[in-house]
Amino acid sequence: MNVFEYLNRQNEFLGAKSDFNNAKVVITGVPMDSTASFRPGTRFGPKKIREVSHELESYSVYNADSLENKNFFDAGDICIPFGNVKKSLDIIGEVTEQILDNGKIPLFLGGEHLISYPIIKKVSKNYPDIIIIHFDAHADLRDIYLGEKLSHATVFRRISEDIKSKHIYQFGIRSGTKDEFLFAKRHTHMNLFEVKTPFLKALPVFKNHPIYITLDIDVVDPAFAPGTGTPEPGGCSAKEILEVVSFFKELNIVGFDLVEVSPPNDSSEITSLLAAKILRELLIVLG
Amino acid sequence: MNVFEYLNRQNEFLGAKSDFNNAKVVITGVPMDSTASFRPGTRFGPKKIREVSHELESYSVYNADSLENKNFFDAGDICIPFGNVKKSLDIIGEVTEQILDNGKIPLFLGGEHLISYPIIKKVSKNYPDIIIIHFDAHADLRDIYLGEKLSHATVFRRISEDIKSKHIYQFGIRSGTKDEFLFAKRHTHMNLFEVKTPFLKALPVFKNHPIYITLDIDVVDPAFAPGTGTPEPGGCSAKEILEVVSFFKELNIVGFDLVEVSPPNDSSEITSLLAAKILRELLIVLG
Amino acid sequence: MNVFEYLNRQNEFLGAKSDFNNAKVVITGVPMDSTASFRPGTRFGPKKIREVSHELESYSVYNADSLENKNFFDAGDICIPFGNVKKSLDIIGEVTEQILDNGKIPLFLGGEHLISYPIIKKVSKNYPDIIIIHFDAHADLRDIYLGEKLSHATVFRRISEDIKSKHIYQFGIRSGTKDEFLFAKRHTHMNLFEVKTPFLKALPVFKNHPIYITLDIDVVDPAFAPGTGTPEPGGCSAKEILEVVSFFKELNIVGFDLVEVSPPNDSSEITSLLAAKILRELLIVLG
Amino acid sequence: MNVFEYLNRQNEFLGAKSDFNNAKVVITGVPMDSTASFRPGTRFGPKKIREVSHELESYSVYNADSLENKNFFDAGDICIPFGNVKKSLDIIGEVTEQILDNGKIPLFLGGEHLISYPIIKKVSKNYPDIIIIHFDAHADLRDIYLGEKLSHATVFRRISEDIKSKHIYQFGIRSGTKDEFLFAKRHTHMNLFEVKTPFLKALPVFKNHPIYITLDIDVVDPAFAPGTGTPEPGGCSAKEILEVVSFFKELNIVGFDLVEVSPPNDSSEITSLLAAKILRELLIVLG
Amino acid sequence: MNVFEYLNRQNEFLGAKSDFNNAKVVITGVPMDSTASFRPGTRFGPKKIREVSHELESYSVYNADSLENKNFFDAGDICIPFGNVKKSLDIIGEVTEQILDNGKIPLFLGGEHLISYPIIKKVSKNYPDIIIIHFDAHADLRDIYLGEKLSHATVFRRISEDIKSKHIYQFGIRSGTKDEFLFAKRHTHMNLFEVKTPFLKALPVFKNHPIYITLDIDVVDPAFAPGTGTPEPGGCSAKEILEVVSFFKELNIVGFDLVEVSPPNDSSEITSLLAAKILRELLIVLG
Amino acid sequence: MNVFEYLNRQNEFLGAKSDFNNAKVVITGVPMDSTASFRPGTRFGPKKIREVSHELESYSVYNADSLENKNFFDAGDICIPFGNVKKSLDIIGEVTEQILDNGKIPLFLGGEHLISYPIIKKVSKNYPDIIIIHFDAHADLRDIYLGEKLSHATVFRRISEDIKSKHIYQFGIRSGTKDEFLFAKRHTHMNLFEVKTPFLKALPVFKNHPIYITLDIDVVDPAFAPGTGTPEPGGCSAKEILEVVSFFKELNIVGFDLVEVSPPNDSSEITSLLAAKILRELLIVLG
Repeated sequence: MNVFEYLNRQNEFLGAKSDFNNAKVVITGVPMDSTASFRPGTRFGPKKIREVSHELESYSVYNADSLENKNFFDAGDICIPFGNVKKSLDIIGEVTEQILDNGKIPLFLGGEHLISYPIIKKVSKNYPDIIIIHFDAHADLRDIYLGEKLSHATVFRRISEDIKSKHIYQFGIRSGTKDEFLFAKRHTHMNLFEVKTPFLKALPVFKNHPIYITLDIDVVDPAFAPGTGTPEPGGCSAKEILEVVSFFKELNIVGFDLVEVSPPNDSSEITSLLAAKILRELLIVLG
Repeated sequence: MNVFEYLNRQNEFLGAKSDFNNAKVVITGVPMDSTASFRPGTRFGPKKIREVSHELESYSVYNADSLENKNFFDAGDICIPFGNVKKSLDIIGEVTEQILDNGKIPLFLGGEHLISYPIIKKVSKNYPDIIIIHFDAHADLRDIYLGEKLSHATVFRRISEDIKSKHIYQFGIRSGTKDEFLFAKRHTHMNLFEVKTPFLKALPVFKNHPIYITLDIDVVDPAFAPGTGTPEPGGCSAKEILEVVSFFKELNIVGFDLVEVSPPNDSSEITSLLAAKILRELLIVLG
Repeated sequence: MNVFEYLNRQNEFLGAKSDFNNAKVVITGVPMDSTASFRPGTRFGPKKIREVSHELESYSVYNADSLENKNFFDAGDICIPFGNVKKSLDIIGEVTEQILDNGKIPLFLGGEHLISYPIIKKVSKNYPDIIIIHFDAHADLRDIYLGEKLSHATVFRRISEDIKSKHIYQFGIRSGTKDEFLFAKRHTHMNLFEVKTPFLKALPVFKNHPIYITLDIDVVDPAFAPGTGTPEPGGCSAKEILEVVSFFKELNIVGFDLVEVSPPNDSSEITSLLAAKILRELLIVLG
Repeated sequence: MNVFEYLNRQNEFLGAKSDFNNAKVVITGVPMDSTASFRPGTRFGPKKIREVSHELESYSVYNADSLENKNFFDAGDICIPFGNVKKSLDIIGEVTEQILDNGKIPLFLGGEHLISYPIIKKVSKNYPDIIIIHFDAHADLRDIYLGEKLSHATVFRRISEDIKSKHIYQFGIRSGTKDEFLFAKRHTHMNLFEVKTPFLKALPVFKNHPIYITLDIDVVDPAFAPGTGTPEPGGCSAKEILEVVSFFKELNIVGFDLVEVSPPNDSSEITSLLAAKILRELLIVLG
Repeated sequence: MNVFEYLNRQNEFLGAKSDFNNAKVVITGVPMDSTASFRPGTRFGPKKIREVSHELESYSVYNADSLENKNFFDAGDICIPFGNVKKSLDIIGEVTEQILDNGKIPLFLGGEHLISYPIIKKVSKNYPDIIIIHFDAHADLRDIYLGEKLSHATVFRRISEDIKSKHIYQFGIRSGTKDEFLFAKRHTHMNLFEVKTPFLKALPVFKNHPIYITLDIDVVDPAFAPGTGTPEPGGCSAKEILEVVSFFKELNIVGFDLVEVSPPNDSSEITSLLAAKILRELLIVLG
Repeated sequence: MNVFEYLNRQNEFLGAKSDFNNAKVVITGVPMDSTASFRPGTRFGPKKIREVSHELESYSVYNADSLENKNFFDAGDICIPFGNVKKSLDIIGEVTEQILDNGKIPLFLGGEHLISYPIIKKVSKNYPDIIIIHFDAHADLRDIYLGEKLSHATVFRRISEDIKSKHIYQFGIRSGTKDEFLFAKRHTHMNLFEVKTPFLKALPVFKNHPIYITLDIDVVDPAFAPGTGTPEPGGCSAKEILEVVSFFKELNIVGFDLVEVSPPNDSSEITSLLAAKILRELLIVLG
């Protein structure tokens, strides 16, 4: 027996394996909230999600399977130059590329939604026929926001410029400008308010494509996910999003991000716990 | 270009116009929580609701319309003599009268529920056939509370003395004394627990009357609206109340108040956000 | 008139009577959270539940009855030797025994779930045919947890050793290890995820047995009950649990505990309020 | 052994005796914050001060004596009609009178500073030569505040009308209007900023008079006492006020109040703890 | 009497006058925290400082004068493009220039310390002989921080490039890299740990120059100013900084900023209150 | 360039080296708060101290030296069986022994003060002439507390049984029972209230002995260290304790612990920051 036997390292996501080379999935945190216009704090998201994950069981009764025999690596948080959006996005893009070049599935934890832009840009290069599944309360389809082309509010407008038309499916949307809804009509499949019903309806289409999923936690109602940058009342319940997640096992997921968890606004940590639980299900499915 | 071009004034409700004379609706805050018996704090409600309103879009996908072309004025908060209930109510009454005399629709933000008393007293004078739609977890029909005739717990008993019998419709009620429920049987239309179903049932009646709506945010379950003076578990969801609000456009609304939002008990600001969203829908409908 | 007329003692549960001898039910608080592995704080539960109970009405419109004419005594909190689990459980057992010996129904407020072990051990001695109704997000059926036989995570494994096979009914379970679910298959009636539907289905069986109910507040979704030691997203709503509670009047309840309310994680006190409301309904039913 | 032996009643101040008749001192809480203009919350002061008192030792190394052999009774909180200032003050006055008529020393816990008015009015009737020692950051000498004669900001103006000229000694004052400072020059002994030095200088005078002490916790710097209604930076330290308190044993104290502790603004409870410690010293001295 | 008489507009700093043209001083808020590396939140500083200022008296017993007869204008907050540091600084510079061109003294509320850079750049152009008085816990003299030339940690290195050598006086510094301290030896007057003593010693020099004062609230110990981005234990007290401020009346102040107040980390608002009090003294002195 | 270059691992204490073998000092966290009688939470202390350490500079202007060239290893947190005090202490003792056997200096982060018992027991075996320097607000010299021999309140009574008489020096003590003070008179050097003055007086004695330092953060006043289990008003300032720490370089320190930091009661993280800063100074001195 030696001193290390007692030591408890809980800084990685529940059940993460220490071997990068054998990992099938790589978790990376992106503590960036530079363009948040309302309340900052999502930079603390990845760290907190890892921390609370250890309260969960590694076994999931939803999937009747466990994290224990899954090979995923938790790479920690990327070091972000706070205040320099351009350079931050470049770094995120490079990290994505290296994960992909190593033949692994990238799984990112935000941070703000803008981080999805460089990730999806890189992933979609590898999969021209990719479909983006986008869970969110906000359309995020503005062309310009506060004078900027790159912002959490413009991210899917930018992404739409890089992938095939009508290959973005949006669920739970309940906020946006008139222009965004007009743009959505022509360029995306946008589902207002509802999540589970339209998702199940679209499921058959999804099965024929490589899938990237981006999940803004504010798609869930603020009662279930108060810890987020821009809460929007009127969303789905935790139970509903977990039910949707249980169908992910039927998809060919090639990349994933979960964004906008903001611990400073999550006094009971229930948002981070919900995010950790969604992640656990996903890791079981991907493993 | 000059210095003022950069300056950002976010102290009024989202989209408020600066011209009182052309306004159709006038928002007034009432920072009064003098008779709160459990936890005070609703005095901070109006200010916080205005503040968080700027996180919302001015466009509503619920109503497919925007605040931008609506004419409403935000008059700020009334100055209340803390601790002097009688004088406070007199001032609220006078403000209401002046708004009505200017031919505008009064829209008040509480503050505690007692503020509805002088408002409704003045509004109902102008509309003898008025119907009061009352969303609340509590009956608020006591005759006397802690020895006082005027209290947040007696407000609808007092109001019932000023308007036609059976012209108060109550929704979502789940707390009261035995006497209050007996009184309700004879004098109001009280709907226990439920909100949307009985509201839709009564909608045809409402269409034939001038309508005053008073919405105590605690009608919504504390999960969705924790920031309130006396939370009462077992209420409706944010989604349900927003659905009910979407029917307000079919009514002839002559006055409105939204009360009992208590920011000190709303650590993630989701109660204020829900209130602001309800208000946005209402302003779009009234504009 | 004397000085005591003005004095307001709100330290006991709403409506508690001061006479132990005539009481039918005895409330006892157990401020123990020694084995909590995630976040401590349930030791403050009993005190806070009593405190917020005074915000509720003594009359319940759910049961159309009132606490006023019910005879129950609030004995305050047991003094626990913090850090000594063995001795703490012995004391709880002794207190239970004395309450039973006095012919009264014991009603305990936790504290962590482990407190149910000595209580149920004593109660079940008096009622060999007893059925345990267990509401919880977690199976709590481990054999050993962190090397300990006695822990909040092993409590129902221990209890299962003392009562008849298959006399434990579990509702709302959504977290556990593979072993716990295997054990449940053989030894308990475990209902995954759902609460109301399976409860109503089992109700006829319950009517023929003495019933002990143990309610871990985390059976409810964290949106409605954030203030708990190990929140688990995906539970039932406050409305649903209150509907289930409304059926308790059809049961022969011989003991009850409500555990895992953790005030430090309950910034808006809505978890304590829900617990107090459940308790009020129970006291009306038992009175 | 019986059930009550284990039960732990911590609702009274540390060391309070249960016998009113033999008590020399009576503690009464006054949960009133009706005229608070900035942030309410002092209504929760008395309850919280009692609660945290149990963290302290009953022995004081400052006075080398203990609460154990002191006879004081804790009468709990007065029931206040929230929102009715006039009636609230009448009730406080009556309670004071009864305590005095029973030959006991009254010790009050606020609540807001206005409560001192009826208390001092009654006490000073019994002691025409009384001196009032007033610790505070604010002069509280306005004639009228927000149109009201009775307010936390006018309380010592009112009191000055009832006692001998120049019999009020004020310490630590650092906020007021020009008029208040002019009034103070003619009618009180006001010491700006400093506490200990001027107190020691005045000590010889105090020894020849019956003394009433009123201590607004905001006399202490907000770093040491953040939990108060209107914090005013630039005050004394906790150490300094405790040193001043250690001289109280040389005085003939006939009444005392400690006011303006506001638990909702005291996230670490250090203000309540300081108040409880001051009270412990006082009770040891008075016993 | 009309509706506006009752209305209470508390969105500007206490005592601000509504006339820009006659104002001698102009307050501008800069809600920028883009380069904060630890915890963001100073963007909420200006708004909160204004809000709590209304709890203070307009009269100062420190200066025996009042805000009432001072002419200053509160221009509100500048609209900042979150995440675009370069453009944000340009805007701040332009606003500064316009205030100076109008012949008024600029007074800025941060926001992070980087905002001082464009302000001082503009102000120092008008006053070649200017001395910068810098109160701070941190040297802020790095050349590059996280790869960036413009950051809260490099601001005084940048400023030193624009003004005369040895014209920066630093007080209260207790954190930095070895290089920063070496740089300070050659280029600034840096005073470690202490504030009042070295300030008084340098006062005679200051009297012969136009003075710009930049006050990072973290110069004060975190006990007195917990609400800041990077608290550094071991600073001066609130009393000491207020004493230093009382000497500002002897200086020829041509510009001022107060930065790094972070309301999300200031649960009792005592940091904002201290900032507001410092500002009140300054406005009285400048008026 | 590869993916790891961007990754930012901030889970160890600032500047920790990854090589255990070459380390001179080993940091170990002990997340134990089982015997806390007032408010639990110190279990989160070690993790939070590490986290906030990254906000500090690695260079110290106090010691004019840096962590960069110091060899210390951060072993993470020990895994504690919550609720089993006996086994927890055994594990801590074993870990201490192994660190000592490897020829390294043990540095522990609590957790509650009881953890010092097994550590000092092991360390003192190696150094029979050892002197214990004990900074604390509480004497911790009870023989039994709540019926237990092993508790945070008895820890130095137990320790005194293992080392030479009068080899414990206590500083800053301001709370205890009469018996503890009597015991101290005979068995320890206890200094009431004061820290720096008596420490400097005893310094010459300390220089001739191997020294173990145990620092309960509550020795500092709650204004500077609110985040602790049992705050006791009237302590020293952060500045004073840092001055005392600056003398540690003159001592032959063979072991150290810093205990009772409780993050849940430290809303602005200033207590953790103070602890991290003390630790930085110590690591520089020990390196």
